[in-house]
Amino acid sequence: MSNPTAAMIVIGDEILSGRTRDSNMHYLAGQLTEAGIDLKEVRVVGDERGTIIAAVQAMSQAYDYVFTSGGIGPTHDDITADCIAASFDASIDVRDDARAILAEHYAKSGTELNTARLRMARIPEGADLIDNPVSAAPGFRLENVHVMAGVPSVFQAMVASVLPTLTGGAPLISKTLRIERGEGDIAGPLGALAEEYPLLSMGSYPFQKDGKYGAHIVIRGNVEEDIDAALVKLQAAFA
Amino acid sequence: MSNPTAAMIVIGDEILSGRTRDSNMHYLAGQLTEAGIDLKEVRVVGDERGTIIAAVQAMSQAYDYVFTSGGIGPTHDDITADCIAASFDASIDVRDDARAILAEHYAKSGTELNTARLRMARIPEGADLIDNPVSAAPGFRLENVHVMAGVPSVFQAMVASVLPTLTGGAPLISKTLRIERGEGDIAGPLGALAEEYPLLSMGSYPFQKDGKYGAHIVIRGNVEEDIDAALVKLQAAFA
Repeated sequence: MSNPTAAMIVIGDEILSGRTRDSNMHYLAGQLTEAGIDLKEVRVVGDERGTIIAAVQAMSQAYDYVFTSGGIGPTHDDITADCIAASFDASIDVRDDARAILAEHYAKSGTELNTARLRMARIPEGADLIDNPVSAAPGFRLENVHVMAGVPSVFQAMVASVLPTLTGGAPLISKTLRIERGEGDIAGPLGALAEEYPLLSMGSYPFQKDGKYGAHIVIRGNVEEDIDAALVKLQAAFA
Repeated sequence: MSNPTAAMIVIGDEILSGRTRDSNMHYLAGQLTEAGIDLKEVRVVGDERGTIIAAVQAMSQAYDYVFTSGGIGPTHDDITADCIAASFDASIDVRDDARAILAEHYAKSGTELNTARLRMARIPEGADLIDNPVSAAPGFRLENVHVMAGVPSVFQAMVASVLPTLTGGAPLISKTLRIERGEGDIAGPLGALAEEYPLLSMGSYPFQKDGKYGAHIVIRGNVEEDIDAALVKLQAAFA
């Protein structure tokens, strides 16, 4: 049986302009792999309503789980929640449960819950809230789309809230063999091995360091015995 | 007149599994912004023929320039060149000009130009080669798609080879104002300012450091006078 599939949508002009270096993709990729969920595709899009809605609709249909990061703050360029609602023809407004969370949070610091902050309580009808232990303003899940913040500490906390609710598969096992030979010498035996083990995924990642050439060969799969057997054969080919 | 648009396709299972952290997206984003080319979308896909072809075809039609990274090495999982050819119904085979480059490079070190290494001379018919001063094996451009290596040092060298061939627009100017107020207090005045200057893009990026809350407000556009005027108004709102 194959693992559940997932996609991610990273939302924000600041990533595409090169101002901010996204770190949420790499974090989520590692977490999903550990959980046995195969991340199949990531799209990075700007703060543009049409582009966001098109990406959400396409990926929500194509994959079991979708995760978004970014665009759920209080400012005018935070349009993710409204785009998600529009993607599923759901209505959206300030919701009492989300407003109560914000009200309690801001009361502690005597901060006014003004119109801008109330934007963060705009939640589509039918969505479940995602807990935000860092800064209170919740994410949410609508259908199979999990909407989370872009700030890495908040994103990571929300991923931790979400992971236990997902159905994972067999965790992907990954083993690496370092071979100090040019990638062009490794390619032949590696290709033959890949044909022999069609259920394993084999990747070659070349390095060049201190005048030494070589590649890290990574073999991934769900059955550890097969991975180990393939590694032994690969090692023997370069002994 | 609006700037030329661009998209990027990052190709590689190792990015989606979380094994490797991509750095090429951030690098290209910065280079394109400096050149006045607007990066509108990035897709990260695995080493899967159907997915790669679909992404190439969609983005090649939607944007002025497309850039890919990854999947042009000598191993069996390097399928990018064949996918690009298939995307445009072009034939592909080992090409004499690319073979000559590899032959000269490997002759220097007395390395055999074997079948695997010859894969790197597979270039679609009608493509122009992209110079690779780091490790010789060339990238190529077919139609508006620029195919480059995934190894960051090679990718960056290829970007340097490609940039002078592109038609840029007005470089995006970006200025930042640091405001030590909660983002929820900034949102109102910032939203009004964004309406007043529809040609400028204004983003708010909150921070929380050493107990201080605030946001970096980034105003981007092509006309420096407008950006400066907007910054003065924003500053006045929080004086």
